[in-house]
Amino acid sequence: MPVAEVLEEILHPQSVAVVGASGNERSWGYSYTSHLLDYGFRGSIYPINPRYPEILGVKAYPSLSAVPGPVDYVISCVPSTEVLGMLDECAGKGVKAVHLYTARFSETGRKHAADLEREILRRARGYGIRLIGPNCMGVYHPGHGVAFAYNLPREAGPVGMLSQSGGGAAIFVRLAGRRGIRFSKVISYGNALDFSECDYLEYFMSDAETRVIAVYLEGVKEGRRFVRTLREAASEKPVIVVKGGRGGAGTRAVASHTASLAGSMETWDALVTQAGAVPAANFEELVDLVLSFCALPPIRGPRVGIAGAGGGPSVLSADECEEAGLEVVDLPPEMRRELRDRGIEIWDWVGNPVDVSIIGGFGLTDMDMLRLMADSLHFDILIGLINELIMFTLSRGEGAEMRLKGAVEGYRRLKEESGKPLLAIIGDDGSGREEYGDRCGEVISQGRTDLIAAGIPFYPTIGRAARAARKVMEYYQRRGR
Amino acid sequence: MPVAEVLEEILHPQSVAVVGASGNERSWGYSYTSHLLDYGFRGSIYPINPRYPEILGVKAYPSLSAVPGPVDYVISCVPSTEVLGMLDECAGKGVKAVHLYTARFSETGRKHAADLEREILRRARGYGIRLIGPNCMGVYHPGHGVAFAYNLPREAGPVGMLSQSGGGAAIFVRLAGRRGIRFSKVISYGNALDFSECDYLEYFMSDAETRVIAVYLEGVKEGRRFVRTLREAASEKPVIVVKGGRGGAGTRAVASHTASLAGSMETWDALVTQAGAVPAANFEELVDLVLSFCALPPIRGPRVGIAGAGGGPSVLSADECEEAGLEVVDLPPEMRRELRDRGIEIWDWVGNPVDVSIIGGFGLTDMDMLRLMADSLHFDILIGLINELIMFTLSRGEGAEMRLKGAVEGYRRLKEESGKPLLAIIGDDGSGREEYGDRCGEVISQGRTDLIAAGIPFYPTIGRAARAARKVMEYYQRRGR
Repeated sequence: MPVAEVLEEILHPQSVAVVGASGNERSWGYSYTSHLLDYGFRGSIYPINPRYPEILGVKAYPSLSAVPGPVDYVISCVPSTEVLGMLDECAGKGVKAVHLYTARFSETGRKHAADLEREILRRARGYGIRLIGPNCMGVYHPGHGVAFAYNLPREAGPVGMLSQSGGGAAIFVRLAGRRGIRFSKVISYGNALDFSECDYLEYFMSDAETRVIAVYLEGVKEGRRFVRTLREAASEKPVIVVKGGRGGAGTRAVASHTASLAGSMETWDALVTQAGAVPAANFEELVDLVLSFCALPPIRGPRVGIAGAGGGPSVLSADECEEAGLEVVDLPPEMRRELRDRGIEIWDWVGNPVDVSIIGGFGLTDMDMLRLMADSLHFDILIGLINELIMFTLSRGEGAEMRLKGAVEGYRRLKEESGKPLLAIIGDDGSGREEYGDRCGEVISQGRTDLIAAGIPFYPTIGRAARAARKVMEYYQRRGR
Repeated sequence: MPVAEVLEEILHPQSVAVVGASGNERSWGYSYTSHLLDYGFRGSIYPINPRYPEILGVKAYPSLSAVPGPVDYVISCVPSTEVLGMLDECAGKGVKAVHLYTARFSETGRKHAADLEREILRRARGYGIRLIGPNCMGVYHPGHGVAFAYNLPREAGPVGMLSQSGGGAAIFVRLAGRRGIRFSKVISYGNALDFSECDYLEYFMSDAETRVIAVYLEGVKEGRRFVRTLREAASEKPVIVVKGGRGGAGTRAVASHTASLAGSMETWDALVTQAGAVPAANFEELVDLVLSFCALPPIRGPRVGIAGAGGGPSVLSADECEEAGLEVVDLPPEMRRELRDRGIEIWDWVGNPVDVSIIGGFGLTDMDMLRLMADSLHFDILIGLINELIMFTLSRGEGAEMRLKGAVEGYRRLKEESGKPLLAIIGDDGSGREEYGDRCGEVISQGRTDLIAAGIPFYPTIGRAARAARKVMEYYQRRGR
């Protein structure tokens, strides 16, 4: 059976046992049980612990063998020394797969721990049991009610992720979730003892629920197969790869974290790009790129039209787009003619970026200009600067709220009417609680929520938006060739 | 009289008239009047407009000459065509300085507008009246109750700024304000018709209330004097410079914005650095650097100790520090010995960055490790990753709040006990309003407020913190030579 089919089955268990479940809220055995309930897993849930009659209101069992029905999938929260015994019990119950949250194996650098890890694989193979991990958070599969952490989105979406790091998987879901991204499956696989990164990548490549694939890795177990699989996957859907452990210290950190060997960054970036995938430097860029692939139509060229800020921020927006490799082209003659024909006195003065501090008094808005740019063959990309902080310096607050709502509504209509990629810039609201005592934070958060509802991707700085747009453009240009 | 003394007098008026004041809330004449009231200006306020008996409860006058007392300072919100007449009136009242918010002069690229601008300068010189602007937001001087925008901090602080762009000045104050930075004076000077950027820089250099100087400019009027003044200023206090209009499009944008000629970026960065000042690429970096100079002791070397994240984010924190030019050194032997002597089983496994997912079960915390690093001569810089989003995936919310409070409190004590530069990383809270329905945003905001209260600078990403730390280090290393 192809590995993708094996994983598809493992990812859809009808019954899950948490071995090492606990009533102690600070334990992972408690958390994993709680997640199955919180995220609405609809199959049977079996907490296993001889010291509890029930955990979180669910009947607990003293051992796996005491469970009345079948058990498809086991989440292991027991110490490493207890894993072999647990596998024997799993075999007796016909368990198909075990997720080993359990850690302290080869990643410790201790020989006895690495020996134990090898023995676990040998025994699991003998039983026909497949392993996720060890030393990993495991699976977040919101459509099936399985999760590895609190406060993740409950609804599913089109993004799949494989991550060598559990912390990386969790931070990605949190960061991306707040930008409106939702997930098919996210798999944190740790030491990759049984399934390798290639197996997971093959799975996501063939998974119909996954439109965009995010990858975090520190090293690979099967180098040649990885390059081949990455190329195949990237020819099916966008694949964005973050490589951790690029420098000397990072490599040292990787060694203690997942015991795999890290290569140098330049090699990686080249390898990823040549395979048709997209490299990202960190989780912030990963989120920017995943969001761009999900929410934007293909970007066909580098010519960008920018509007929304005034003065210095407008000038710098052009600099940052150019430094990111986009072209901030001047307005074409036919657009200037149209402005003149409409009686706009500053038809020859207004430019790209559109400086709102200039056009204000002349019956022209940034939205008018974005609409003209959307209609012009001269522009490939539109960037709207919401300029939300300045709104709050131009009025006491009520006016700012109106302006912000107006901007989002304008973008929403522009997106509906035009097929052109539109990126919105709205700063992160990094304020303290009572910094100003105005409604600023609340209004800006509402603006983000409205942008998400309208399907418009937003970025905290123009530099990040421009770098994402360029990489997305390069991806489609490579595919076009 | 030296120009710094002239400016010092102009910046402390006892009476201010807003010519073109208005009762229309959407007009700048209304805003400027309102700001004098809101920010607590304690001298006389005279709104000037023949159509209103009072504005915002303050008696209005039909003309400047109708004002009973003296008028030191005028804020002009009248159209450009009325400025010459207004200057004649100012002369009659003995006005010392006029801030021309009024725009549409040379920046329009129109000859008649540039001619008018020159005539305004000629007439002002004839009357002995000094001009700020035109085409600018003017002065934010919270200590004196003068401001150019709503929702700016009311209390004063140690940062001065000169900005060719009003939008740039406003965005800087908003962005920096939310990081806990406060300001001596911020001057948006627009077309720099009378005072040039050099005059303002000289002022801030000699101003006792200003400890750090931020500069946004697009071009300079007096090239040689600027380089000389920048060098003098930078030898007195840190000066951070953002240059707008670096590329082709930016230069075009600059031309329409303030009608000054922009140079190329490389030249600028080299010039700024050679003068002993610090270049920044955008307002975000400007804020990071200003904050670092305000809140950190001198950074003497590149060796950084990092703690707080787990797994991938920890690995990437090392990569990003190294890519920013810092050195993520390994733990020195004596520190490992100390860990071993304390009975820490993983004394040989724990590293730098300190991975919290590893140390968890071994009676060791990230704060323990930061404290050891603070005591070691082996480290020049400490970076604490608050890891706030992961906190919310490890517990339902109450636990996250405790962890976050604990982290901030730990940093506060560490800062008190150690003289070492400590930078905290706490992500921007870029969430929509009801993204998760938990208290996440509120708790994180409170964490930022607590960091500000503790005087600990925070940064939204480790990359930004590391780049700021390296530039601050280079500044002190240059000064040391």
